Amino acid sequence: MKLYDFPLSPSPRRVRMFAAEKGIALDIETVNIREKEQFTDAFRKISPNCTVPVLELDDGATICDSIAIWRYLEEIRPEPPLMGTTPLDKAMVELWLRRVELEGYQAVVEVLRNGAERFTDRAVPSAENFAQIPALAERGKRRYALFLDMLDERLGESAYVAGPDFTAADIHALITIDFAERAVDIAPPDRLAALKAWREKVSARDSAQA
Amino acid sequence: MKLYDFPLSPSPRRVRMFAAEKGIALDIETVNIREKEQFTDAFRKISPNCTVPVLELDDGATICDSIAIWRYLEEIRPEPPLMGTTPLDKAMVELWLRRVELEGYQAVVEVLRNGAERFTDRAVPSAENFAQIPALAERGKRRYALFLDMLDERLGESAYVAGPDFTAADIHALITIDFAERAVDIAPPDRLAALKAWREKVSARDSAQA
Repeated sequence: MKLYDFPLSPSPRRVRMFAAEKGIALDIETVNIREKEQFTDAFRKISPNCTVPVLELDDGATICDSIAIWRYLEEIRPEPPLMGTTPLDKAMVELWLRRVELEGYQAVVEVLRNGAERFTDRAVPSAENFAQIPALAERGKRRYALFLDMLDERLGESAYVAGPDFTAADIHALITIDFAERAVDIAPPDRLAALKAWREKVSARDSAQA
Repeated sequence: MKLYDFPLSPSPRRVRMFAAEKGIALDIETVNIREKEQFTDAFRKISPNCTVPVLELDDGATICDSIAIWRYLEEIRPEPPLMGTTPLDKAMVELWLRRVELEGYQAVVEVLRNGAERFTDRAVPSAENFAQIPALAERGKRRYALFLDMLDERLGESAYVAGPDFTAADIHALITIDFAERAVDIAPPDRLAALKAWREKVSARDSAQA
């Protein structure tokens, strides 16, 4: 299996970290987003939406979404489970993946795309241009701060995001937090002690370097 | 199992339609959102975020998210499968659920919450108030129009949203489209013939009335 990857983007990092937890080796082909390599005709044939990551299977089938790639890898290599084991566990992983995505990750994307100069007219990931909405960048900051507060409260009562075990929800949350710090310069406040302890614990896993 | 429900909201309808496809009977308890019953102390104990749907299991455990409830129901009642069978099928359902959620449903929510008078200062579903951003309502309309074009193209080459079989991705897409028409008065243009034919086909399923 081949992963079309870009080292600095959060979405492909999700796949690398998940695969490392599973012990799945992937052939890596780097698509240099900063050099706009995703818009070449060759890559458009692989990923019509011009995004990474893409997982290309040995029969040529492709999966063009990080979480969809997780679902595939979880099925072909169930151990160690990262998306829950019992029906209720699986539901809790789904619920927390959605909260991290909608309340956390998307808020950071709003801040970045509506604020950073390099995203002028690229406020939405789309083939069409969208003007930035500065008020949305500000709103994203507020939403993200509320997300961090909520997550800290959760981690005060739960060892990991979705429950007692490390799961894909921890990967999504860690990568969102690292991305916010690097891309929009927002780090979690030190007062969020449970979040801080969890972040250190999860960052210490070998897979976090993948 | 008990479902805390509100007939006019899109998210609980997702659960009702999914359960009907599976032949799963749910005890329904209506929470009247229009009368703000979700903010009562009794309901806060069940759903800290004050949202419906909530699925309450017989042992008292609760699942407070429509897609997480789907995941639970798919596990306890695998037939008929609505979230894919092979690993690649499951990945495709995940991918299309995410596209419908992020490009379709969230765009409609942006239009509604940033435009409708009854959501003044409630532009984000949160315990805190958020002012409306009128430019975001306009952007949501454009994003939703692009989503409909994309979905029509997809349905021109695929019998159902995620592939040859009816899945949860069809439920998510149908309910998003019905919601947009009812809540923000945006119907798909007639020129989107493949989308129109698919909508008629999916709307004719018994479960669409659940």
